Amino acid sequence: MAKDVEVAEHGSFSAKDYHDPPPAPLIDSVELTKWSFYRALIAEFIATLLFLYITVLTVIGYKSQIAGGDPCGGVGILGIAWAFGGMIFILVYCTAGISGGHINPAVTFGLFLARKVSLIRAILYMVAQCLGAICGVGLVKAFQSAYYDRYGGGANELSAGYSKGTGLGAEIIGTFVLVYTVFSATDPKRSARDSHVPVLAPLPIGFAVFMVHLATIPITGTGINPARSLGAAVIYNNDKAWDDQVSIFPSPLATYYHCQSITMMGV
Amino acid sequence: MAKDVEVAEHGSFSAKDYHDPPPAPLIDSVELTKWSFYRALIAEFIATLLFLYITVLTVIGYKSQIAGGDPCGGVGILGIAWAFGGMIFILVYCTAGISGGHINPAVTFGLFLARKVSLIRAILYMVAQCLGAICGVGLVKAFQSAYYDRYGGGANELSAGYSKGTGLGAEIIGTFVLVYTVFSATDPKRSARDSHVPVLAPLPIGFAVFMVHLATIPITGTGINPARSLGAAVIYNNDKAWDDQVSIFPSPLATYYHCQSITMMGV
Amino acid sequence: MAKDVEVAEHGSFSAKDYHDPPPAPLIDSVELTKWSFYRALIAEFIATLLFLYITVLTVIGYKSQIAGGDPCGGVGILGIAWAFGGMIFILVYCTAGISGGHINPAVTFGLFLARKVSLIRAILYMVAQCLGAICGVGLVKAFQSAYYDRYGGGANELSAGYSKGTGLGAEIIGTFVLVYTVFSATDPKRSARDSHVPVLAPLPIGFAVFMVHLATIPITGTGINPARSLGAAVIYNNDKAWDDQVSIFPSPLATYYHCQSITMMGV
Amino acid sequence: MAKDVEVAEHGSFSAKDYHDPPPAPLIDSVELTKWSFYRALIAEFIATLLFLYITVLTVIGYKSQIAGGDPCGGVGILGIAWAFGGMIFILVYCTAGISGGHINPAVTFGLFLARKVSLIRAILYMVAQCLGAICGVGLVKAFQSAYYDRYGGGANELSAGYSKGTGLGAEIIGTFVLVYTVFSATDPKRSARDSHVPVLAPLPIGFAVFMVHLATIPITGTGINPARSLGAAVIYNNDKAWDDQVSIFPSPLATYYHCQSITMMGV
Repeated sequence: MAKDVEVAEHGSFSAKDYHDPPPAPLIDSVELTKWSFYRALIAEFIATLLFLYITVLTVIGYKSQIAGGDPCGGVGILGIAWAFGGMIFILVYCTAGISGGHINPAVTFGLFLARKVSLIRAILYMVAQCLGAICGVGLVKAFQSAYYDRYGGGANELSAGYSKGTGLGAEIIGTFVLVYTVFSATDPKRSARDSHVPVLAPLPIGFAVFMVHLATIPITGTGINPARSLGAAVIYNNDKAWDDQVSIFPSPLATYYHCQSITMMGV
Repeated sequence: MAKDVEVAEHGSFSAKDYHDPPPAPLIDSVELTKWSFYRALIAEFIATLLFLYITVLTVIGYKSQIAGGDPCGGVGILGIAWAFGGMIFILVYCTAGISGGHINPAVTFGLFLARKVSLIRAILYMVAQCLGAICGVGLVKAFQSAYYDRYGGGANELSAGYSKGTGLGAEIIGTFVLVYTVFSATDPKRSARDSHVPVLAPLPIGFAVFMVHLATIPITGTGINPARSLGAAVIYNNDKAWDDQVSIFPSPLATYYHCQSITMMGV
Repeated sequence: MAKDVEVAEHGSFSAKDYHDPPPAPLIDSVELTKWSFYRALIAEFIATLLFLYITVLTVIGYKSQIAGGDPCGGVGILGIAWAFGGMIFILVYCTAGISGGHINPAVTFGLFLARKVSLIRAILYMVAQCLGAICGVGLVKAFQSAYYDRYGGGANELSAGYSKGTGLGAEIIGTFVLVYTVFSATDPKRSARDSHVPVLAPLPIGFAVFMVHLATIPITGTGINPARSLGAAVIYNNDKAWDDQVSIFPSPLATYYHCQSITMMGV
Repeated sequence: MAKDVEVAEHGSFSAKDYHDPPPAPLIDSVELTKWSFYRALIAEFIATLLFLYITVLTVIGYKSQIAGGDPCGGVGILGIAWAFGGMIFILVYCTAGISGGHINPAVTFGLFLARKVSLIRAILYMVAQCLGAICGVGLVKAFQSAYYDRYGGGANELSAGYSKGTGLGAEIIGTFVLVYTVFSATDPKRSARDSHVPVLAPLPIGFAVFMVHLATIPITGTGINPARSLGAAVIYNNDKAWDDQVSIFPSPLATYYHCQSITMMGV
């Protein structure tokens, strides 16, 4: 833990041991002609679909089991938090080399603002993610028709006793934990310095999602992934769930300010 | 997470930085003369035996403890999901270099269809896996004679309130999550690009099994491993358990279509 | 597990395959002129803030859920232990290359005594950590105003039935587990010998924190991080919580003796 | 998962890409003169002490919390299983480069039979491990004097309803899972073939311990570590606990046969 390698700074030339990639162009018409671009869109769609399917199915299954009269019979809130964090770990592992493994419109938006992805790619990724999320929750509703509506549809809603401001604040800091981990895992400077950074990468990103769920499930159900909140709200289509969706919008905005501050200070 | 290395595509030659292995022959009579082939069969047998032994023992132990009047006294559904995922992590780690670490006839079938293993190897692997599963559950019955039959024998059965179609659909998507992770972990293209892919490999495969169990234990008990379903059904030998075994057959079939689509689109 | 590589010892010269870094100077005025030094301070501040925010929010959320009449409804003590261990895993991963990833004044103090960081860096790190901890708990109080004071404010207090000596002893051994893991993970000799040491590093450090919490939450709530105890005590500002803070001071002191013994015996 | 690299076998010379270390001598008088040998003994002593201290403290703390009238108030059986598995992960990580990270007399005995360690080293390791275990449990008794005897002292005892033969059988297979994982993790052939084998090593060994505890805590409390059983029995010193210690002796014996079969078949 005591490592503070200083890249030679007292010369007129910068002898870096890593390469910063050039910023992505705003509109890159070449990438539209490549099959790898469409493969990336399919990967984002499938990943978000599987993410929502597994996690919302876990939430509904848990609620139907405890409603069946057995208070300790399900996987518990801890199991739900593992489902969110573990799926992100798996899906980032699987799609990192294909699409970059965003799976979250807030992450895509943040990486667009940091000029890591082009505008067209960012927009199409977000569309694919939102469609995937809606399909994933739709599958859960199809399989769990008897229980889906009865147990809240996996939608993010503010718990009783918390104001909208509290929910918003909790989402903003939760998003920061995720964005901070993602930026650390993809920082070319750190990858060059520390061997653990590129090798472990998907694991701390998954754990960041797990941790934020442990802390904020009691407040909002955790909406740091706007696609997850949107998908559940579209399929559940309940007034209160829509009304609480204020948390959908701060998430990309918060990501913007987080990216700015992390990049400016280089922390 | 923003990585999209393009292998040079604008030349007449393909300057790949990785090697696709040639497809396995349908019948490879040479491999029958090698000790390493029989060692692989023994490894698949032992791995499936240990997998079923530990997981079914965990299920029966949990049910006997909560039946003893202490609703929170056992490891919980979360502990059962860990047992399945954790054992796959350990066993893939241990047998990957010996037999390829399939441990699941559906995975063997999928890799045969993708021409990664020969026909003879595929058939003998599946036989070894099914025998191992039956022996593993048999051991649990021998040790837990007082509780085994009373607590459902660890067999996969549809929970009340779900149709067979729902169980089938849940198994098909659950199998997809596993097969998708396995293909990502063994893709030579990704291994060459991303340092985290080959190093972590057994961990996301184990987590995929863990995640699918979190989501589908409330529906079918999760039968994505046909050997696990078969072993428990043979030893428990109960009408309802056999009747619900529809989930045994879709699993290899689903694997076939999953492999086709993943390979075709290269996602 | 059977590895005992002996570096050539029977010659007059020491042919080492690794390099011990020179001890850090007591006062290094050059580092005060570098931006990377201030970036490290910001990183320690943010990391400790996020650590306290997520963990104390998890504690308060759990207590408010079980107080709501649902004894199994929260993440459980196990979830709280995961929150502490998992956050340390993430934050060491993120900040190891920026500040060394201390996040704990006891670790900073130990590394100062081992001459790995200079005096000025050690003092300013500790100030940043304590400020971060106070801000993190303050955020929880702001978000959870209705519940924060009612549920003990996440402060470390001795459970009924334990003497102060017991609490002190439990904290000293708990600190040893953490310091021992940190020294093993950062030992240049081990990194050169075993490929798993530098690659996994943040994971066993996080697990050490997880393990110590499993064991000592029932006794003191686990105060191996003096910044965590101080932050909660400042914001909660309750007589008993302050009175039990004896555990704040032994922690750096214990770290001193632990570092001495580990270094002397080279275990 | 489809990897079956064949080392060139059709030549008269064996062009291996790895080196088998020569078998350890029965009595190696040179190692007695090296400081590294005594450092290894100290490391085994400290590791076994910390292992027993943390795990038995977790067991007693859990039992005292649920006895306090709150059935879901502790870390649960799942938390206890994590404590055993997680501590082995940490301690193997920390001591692998110093002493080989045995921490378990059965592992030392197995590695002696496989001629990986000398006789003298094996005997002194086992003595250090047993002393460490007794001191670790003694510390728990000192800290938890009010609860230690009341809650069974963390000793391994057969649960009601199981015969000694069942307990013995469960311990033998449980030991096999651990020994199989240890041999896979330290196999020089696999380390050369698969990059994940040496890098992850301590993680699957820790998970193997976690899994065996999930499955056999309901039967015997899991005694695959003879030092753990001995330490708790010595300090608790209760007739029934001693009487059930049949599980201490089969463990090294089982290890012997396991090592023989794994080595012979090369699985």
